[in-house]
Amino acid sequence: MRGLSVGVDVGGTFVKIGLVAPDGAVLRSVQIPTEPKNGPDSFIRRLKAIVADWRFETIGFGLAGGVDAKKGTLVFVPNLRGWDGYSFKKAFKIRTSVENDANAAVWGGYAISLKKKPRTVVGVTLGTGVGGGLIIDGRLHRGATGSAGEIGHQTLELDGPRCHCGRRGCLEAYAGTAGIQRSARRLMRPPPSPLTPKSLAQAASDGDRGARRVWDEIGARIGQGLANIVLVLNPDAILILGGVARAGELVLKPLRRVFAAQAFQEPFQELTISAPADRDWGVVGAALLSRERVQ
Amino acid sequence: MRGLSVGVDVGGTFVKIGLVAPDGAVLRSVQIPTEPKNGPDSFIRRLKAIVADWRFETIGFGLAGGVDAKKGTLVFVPNLRGWDGYSFKKAFKIRTSVENDANAAVWGGYAISLKKKPRTVVGVTLGTGVGGGLIIDGRLHRGATGSAGEIGHQTLELDGPRCHCGRRGCLEAYAGTAGIQRSARRLMRPPPSPLTPKSLAQAASDGDRGARRVWDEIGARIGQGLANIVLVLNPDAILILGGVARAGELVLKPLRRVFAAQAFQEPFQELTISAPADRDWGVVGAALLSRERVQ
Repeated sequence: MRGLSVGVDVGGTFVKIGLVAPDGAVLRSVQIPTEPKNGPDSFIRRLKAIVADWRFETIGFGLAGGVDAKKGTLVFVPNLRGWDGYSFKKAFKIRTSVENDANAAVWGGYAISLKKKPRTVVGVTLGTGVGGGLIIDGRLHRGATGSAGEIGHQTLELDGPRCHCGRRGCLEAYAGTAGIQRSARRLMRPPPSPLTPKSLAQAASDGDRGARRVWDEIGARIGQGLANIVLVLNPDAILILGGVARAGELVLKPLRRVFAAQAFQEPFQELTISAPADRDWGVVGAALLSRERVQ
Repeated sequence: MRGLSVGVDVGGTFVKIGLVAPDGAVLRSVQIPTEPKNGPDSFIRRLKAIVADWRFETIGFGLAGGVDAKKGTLVFVPNLRGWDGYSFKKAFKIRTSVENDANAAVWGGYAISLKKKPRTVVGVTLGTGVGGGLIIDGRLHRGATGSAGEIGHQTLELDGPRCHCGRRGCLEAYAGTAGIQRSARRLMRPPPSPLTPKSLAQAASDGDRGARRVWDEIGARIGQGLANIVLVLNPDAILILGGVARAGELVLKPLRRVFAAQAFQEPFQELTISAPADRDWGVVGAALLSRERVQ
């Protein structure tokens, strides 16, 4: 059908596949296991079988790691060991794009949820990890090697908590799922069980003071990380995506307090902060990006 | 003469005026007192008298604060109280540009010292304060309100040393002149007199271990601040300008150690780091920017 694209968000465990309309509507949606050990050829065969009777013009992939967007190849994706160098472009006869999954999600949120299409947008994806993507002058900014947008690993404190990446004090060490759980164990007696962002948001909404302190800390750290970027890039808008964004004002209030406390107010005064309802932005963005020209 | 422009770097105390060739050569150079209390009309009269017999096609200004580059007006410059709203464009009949001084200096260093014209460059100006500017896709990135490039006020430690801006732990609180002096007083017994970046560089070159520790700390903090930006922007090059950059390897060695210790090496591996010889980059850049179209 005219204007339709397929978006494929390839995680280490599951792959989400969607048939996406130009307005971001997902017309069909399928989830399959990734089975990374069976290799990319097996994965592409299963994918082709699923979309065989779908009508679409382009297909876009989002991968949790490094890609070469110009060549349409996978460079290095930790979850997909052994797939290095695989060319998604060669696997399809139609227009095909490959993008980092956080970049794809931010593009999806930008294209669909921000109606005014601001020129410069800093997008952050809050989930197990903390990722991000940049829109500069209305285009996805990939950077010199395609790795731009690694918002989650800026160092906020040299002696901060240990991060999965091996360093200390990264934004992700505070605001990724493991960091949130660590804060909850420190500040709540007892923490909720199961200890998830969802149960923590519920506890805070129910008036638990420890849970509120957890969210205050998380929001303040996300605010510190984003304020650093706002001072440098002076964007029109910030876009907050992902599961943790569902905590809404619990995260946004302390974040806005950090912004209001900045000495240089100029880049913060007309900055808009959007946290659209959570959707499969990775699928939507991967699909829509397959229609864009790679710069 | 064909291709010549005047660059004017307006500080709070002195104004540097240069006649600049397209290759960045400064053919004439004059310094006058700013006398901000006499207002902008008086300043422009004195400036016009100086350049009356110079032949040039365009003129560009660099100011230490907020400007409206599109309108060519001064918005808010702390050193020039009472000049708010002044239109430099209306004061001249030729093509006239107005830019933040750090942006102008970075543009000068980019246009003249980086021969390969990388697409994306993070520039940092190290002096009394720590400023910066961004080149993205070969153009100066001004951001939503023209304040992009405020590299010096990212928060590196929430409980870090007090900064002139009123907050704590800013990059400038470590790597601006006052921060460098504070480190020297803490780590050297006795610190050199006069206590300047120059005397500290001399002491370190002479083998003073305390002075070396001061530079190690400064370089590591500049490294932390720049690494945060490299992770987000993934630039092709970093450009280090200003007086402190003269300390050369004393600053660059610890900076490179911070880059080498990053968990995500991809954006650092082909990154070039340039610290060109110190010049009046503000004058050169202001002149050259007056020939560029404001985006």
